[in-house]
Amino acid sequence: MGHRAEPEHTHPDDVPVQAVFAALADPVRLGIVRELAGSPEWERACGSFDVPVGKAALSHHFAVLRSAGLIEQRDDGAKRVNRLRRAELEARFPGLLDLAVIG
Amino acid sequence: MGHRAEPEHTHPDDVPVQAVFAALADPVRLGIVRELAGSPEWERACGSFDVPVGKAALSHHFAVLRSAGLIEQRDDGAKRVNRLRRAELEARFPGLLDLAVIG
Repeated sequence: MGHRAEPEHTHPDDVPVQAVFAALADPVRLGIVRELAGSPEWERACGSFDVPVGKAALSHHFAVLRSAGLIEQRDDGAKRVNRLRRAELEARFPGLLDLAVIG
Repeated sequence: MGHRAEPEHTHPDDVPVQAVFAALADPVRLGIVRELAGSPEWERACGSFDVPVGKAALSHHFAVLRSAGLIEQRDDGAKRVNRLRRAELEARFPGLLDLAVIG
């Protein structure tokens, strides 16, 4: 596998709530967040989500989720794996993740 | 003043959280919600908000806020006045309004 850039992250503390709303306003991104909420941390590779979009669009959606402080990613061999930033989000926006997952 | 159609409303109970996120993802709409949160009910006319958009765009933004269950409107003489659906929203999406206003 070739080199690829490390994913850039933004901590929830540095994210305005409007950006989180925008990230969660999209059905694909909301679906990813909901799937991650039901999965152990670092277990879901980017390719493992059942989404109706192509690779380039999916890559964009993950970038939006990172920049809104919702997810963290790291490379694990050939895979890029994900975790929901549950604790950090809960500290910054109490209750928001539950609303997104249940609502 | 001519006749105009009564505004159509959607109750928060009938709104998926994704639609609320979409409504609050826009800076003009988030600004209106924040101003309403600081105003007594039915006191703010549509023309009283300090927003950088024209009349048609503003009318669209109010329609989005109504259909997301965020606001209620009624005509009061020549004015259309607004209230935030605070109690209904709190019952359906606990804590969300506070996050939007503070965040």
